[in-house]
Amino acid sequence: MPPKLLTFLFLPLLAASLAAASRRHPSPANSTAAAAAGGGGDPIYLWPLPKNFTSGSQTLLVDPDLALDAQGPGGGAAAVGEAFARYKSLIFPPWAHAARNGSGGYYGVGKLTVVVASADETLELGVDESYRIYVAAKGGVNSIVDGATIEANTIYGAIRGLETFSQLCVFNYDTKNVEVRHAPWYIQDEPRFAFRGLLLDTSRHFLPVDVIKKVIDSMSYSKLNVLHWHIIDEQSFPLEVPSYPNLWKGSYSKWERYTVEDARDIVRGNGYPKLWPSPKCREPLDVTSNFTFEVISGILSGCWNATPHVKQWLHERNMTTKDAYKYFVLKAQEIAINLNWIPVNWEETFNSFKENLNPLTVVHNWLGPGVCPKVVEKGFRCIMSNQGVWYLDHLDVPWEDFYTSEPLAGINNTAQQKLVLGGEVCMWGETADTSDVQQTIWPRAAAAAERMWSQLEAISSQDLETTVLARLHYFRCLLNHRGIAAAPVTNFYARRPPIGPGSCFVQ
Amino acid sequence: MPPKLLTFLFLPLLAASLAAASRRHPSPANSTAAAAAGGGGDPIYLWPLPKNFTSGSQTLLVDPDLALDAQGPGGGAAAVGEAFARYKSLIFPPWAHAARNGSGGYYGVGKLTVVVASADETLELGVDESYRIYVAAKGGVNSIVDGATIEANTIYGAIRGLETFSQLCVFNYDTKNVEVRHAPWYIQDEPRFAFRGLLLDTSRHFLPVDVIKKVIDSMSYSKLNVLHWHIIDEQSFPLEVPSYPNLWKGSYSKWERYTVEDARDIVRGNGYPKLWPSPKCREPLDVTSNFTFEVISGILSGCWNATPHVKQWLHERNMTTKDAYKYFVLKAQEIAINLNWIPVNWEETFNSFKENLNPLTVVHNWLGPGVCPKVVEKGFRCIMSNQGVWYLDHLDVPWEDFYTSEPLAGINNTAQQKLVLGGEVCMWGETADTSDVQQTIWPRAAAAAERMWSQLEAISSQDLETTVLARLHYFRCLLNHRGIAAAPVTNFYARRPPIGPGSCFVQ
Repeated sequence: MPPKLLTFLFLPLLAASLAAASRRHPSPANSTAAAAAGGGGDPIYLWPLPKNFTSGSQTLLVDPDLALDAQGPGGGAAAVGEAFARYKSLIFPPWAHAARNGSGGYYGVGKLTVVVASADETLELGVDESYRIYVAAKGGVNSIVDGATIEANTIYGAIRGLETFSQLCVFNYDTKNVEVRHAPWYIQDEPRFAFRGLLLDTSRHFLPVDVIKKVIDSMSYSKLNVLHWHIIDEQSFPLEVPSYPNLWKGSYSKWERYTVEDARDIVRGNGYPKLWPSPKCREPLDVTSNFTFEVISGILSGCWNATPHVKQWLHERNMTTKDAYKYFVLKAQEIAINLNWIPVNWEETFNSFKENLNPLTVVHNWLGPGVCPKVVEKGFRCIMSNQGVWYLDHLDVPWEDFYTSEPLAGINNTAQQKLVLGGEVCMWGETADTSDVQQTIWPRAAAAAERMWSQLEAISSQDLETTVLARLHYFRCLLNHRGIAAAPVTNFYARRPPIGPGSCFVQ
Repeated sequence: MPPKLLTFLFLPLLAASLAAASRRHPSPANSTAAAAAGGGGDPIYLWPLPKNFTSGSQTLLVDPDLALDAQGPGGGAAAVGEAFARYKSLIFPPWAHAARNGSGGYYGVGKLTVVVASADETLELGVDESYRIYVAAKGGVNSIVDGATIEANTIYGAIRGLETFSQLCVFNYDTKNVEVRHAPWYIQDEPRFAFRGLLLDTSRHFLPVDVIKKVIDSMSYSKLNVLHWHIIDEQSFPLEVPSYPNLWKGSYSKWERYTVEDARDIVRGNGYPKLWPSPKCREPLDVTSNFTFEVISGILSGCWNATPHVKQWLHERNMTTKDAYKYFVLKAQEIAINLNWIPVNWEETFNSFKENLNPLTVVHNWLGPGVCPKVVEKGFRCIMSNQGVWYLDHLDVPWEDFYTSEPLAGINNTAQQKLVLGGEVCMWGETADTSDVQQTIWPRAAAAAERMWSQLEAISSQDLETTVLARLHYFRCLLNHRGIAAAPVTNFYARRPPIGPGSCFVQ
């Protein structure tokens, strides 16, 4: 369960994972009716569904020695080369290179051209994640280029394109080749929402750094782009704050802790550098004011009323705890905004004193449905995490409920719709530790991920229990293939073991 | 559940994972009474417990730039260098190297000397896994050498020593150094049993190659040394057999298959090459006789009596199915032995026609307790997998039962005791797939691993619910830290989620 009072987050902190999406580029008016089936009538096993695509009926072989041809001002970025290497190892078995020599086949996809228009690697909310993919054999029907090409405006779009390209590449066990079926392909894609988050709670159970990194990897497979790292809470304080070295003494044990370097390591690369107040500052969460941390520390060590010096402080100012909560939130908002950060508040602040909130506030819904319509009607931005449908620790919520929950529900005004940044599925950690966190997150988080990435028309037009379920089964098996312990899709309760022998693709 | 009739394995096939242990080298007569506590009275968090060791009261810092100093005829082997690199990355956080520059501390362990006496890399049952470790600062009390040294007769012993060394290295979150506490250390270690196995069933649920590799990695952490890959069974036939290309059409789907190259990739490196009939032969399980595979195929496609051509075949020879089973087993034994393999049979063959079994037969117990005493009394070798205590899919069997089950129970004759090769915990796959296989195996398999590795006197003298449990908690958290989803130790049923918030070390 989320803390009712305390949680106060800064948007840059949320963006610890990957790029956020852009909606700056209006999509071409284009039908998505073909989303459910490829040229040959087979299901298109892509997750989440791209915005627009066309496919054909050719099968192209992909060269195990697939080369990267990086183009454009941003093509040479280290992140592009690294992502290409990661995906190449996901696409091909380790012995594929050796097998090539005996194959002698013609590889229709011998290189992957990645064109990145901008060298600007700034990662911020709304960054452009759009991309286009072309896959065609030379001289093939509708061929535009030879082989495969990804075009993107930013390196983040290119990385999204690589994920989609990897899903086009399927290993054929009979021929032992990696194939792109249904070529030629043309895909144009961009997300519907800029903020597509996953909350991970390391206070109720400590999660080792490598476990968090694996979750970040798995998020990218479904194009989720924000890790909301709920590092601390009442149960434990695992994070090092150098200027307050007593804080992490509140960890469960001396071995269940994150150093500043650990946190930096998790943020490294794809994280948003403004998590750190300055490049040389080693204190990620220190908001310069002793006052703030004293109050937070006070909350963590007990209720305000039960803490003598806080009680005394309140008494002297003739404040109730409700007054103090409001005072704390508004003070922290002020600090954050002065530091050029955007405050994200759980919805209680909106529910209690919306008239006092800074207009920059992003309201994070969790208590129930129908909150975002009220929030955006008042001109605030909103993130949906309605606990009835998007709390992963609610094991009785099936994937269908995750899938069909619409962040824009009840919001018809276009300007107001734009204030909905997206949503976040929440992995509260009361019963989730290293042993079960992956199977509690997956595959249900993927259902929400498609809801947030793909076009509303496309996902609404597909039959849930046939087309969508078949694709989700396939995506779950893809996660398994990549070493992610995604649970069976159709179990009545989430993360339960398979009920008996059977194929991954039907369980 | 294991198949009652079919399973017939060749010993080399079992050794797909790591080196088997040797008991050739008699251990020095040495007390193990100190096993429960280090010099300072703290628990010694090593799993499994080494045979003999002494420790002190110094704390040494380990250099993040720890260098390998490989010595001896076998020290330069690629496997040693690769294992050192693996363990170095497990011991140090990725940012440790950068942190070193600011530390300025004196590193008592600046290099790790690994001396391997033999260049012979032959991997076979009974290979020498013994090793010795010395860790001491120069001039320290009882210091023998400066820094840390591992001595072993084979590369396999060196790899076991590296695991133990890695468990001596603990990250101190306050100083941000990796430390060896309780130095100086002297450890002399070797396993009690040569065969310490884990059965993994990929017929009831397909497990992707990377998932199997991760299981092999995790086995090495508790010094298990035999992966018994139960590849196929009635439910599915995922393995490619090139000369019988129809067989793997019995896989659950066209994507739930192992190519010959996949199997080779899993065996690669540490596996026993005799899995392959010849270096150039691509057919791992083809025992040269059409007859054999036809029979196996017949079994897999239904019961013998229900298959017309088998029924006809039996009728022509006036054989019952029991006769046919015996005929099949003995025929396959003959083929195996002619190919210089050792047959391992589930205990039914011993129970039914022990007088006909080749004396080289290894009898694999599973039905219940008390079988190995009968087996070794008849001069056969035995492997214990008593389903009441060592079947991992029996979720109601607690770690204590895994821990206290003794392969030598009821065998007092020393010569007969030597016929017990060891044991194997069995991960049958009816309800275990990628989503839950790790937490079904761990931590309970570790309990059996210590029983099979460590000296009987040492593990019998420790109090189960205090000293042993504390060490097992610690080992479970070590697995978690290494990304293995080991489940809480004390849950009433295995692989259940934690019941509430809390530390890994007490759940």
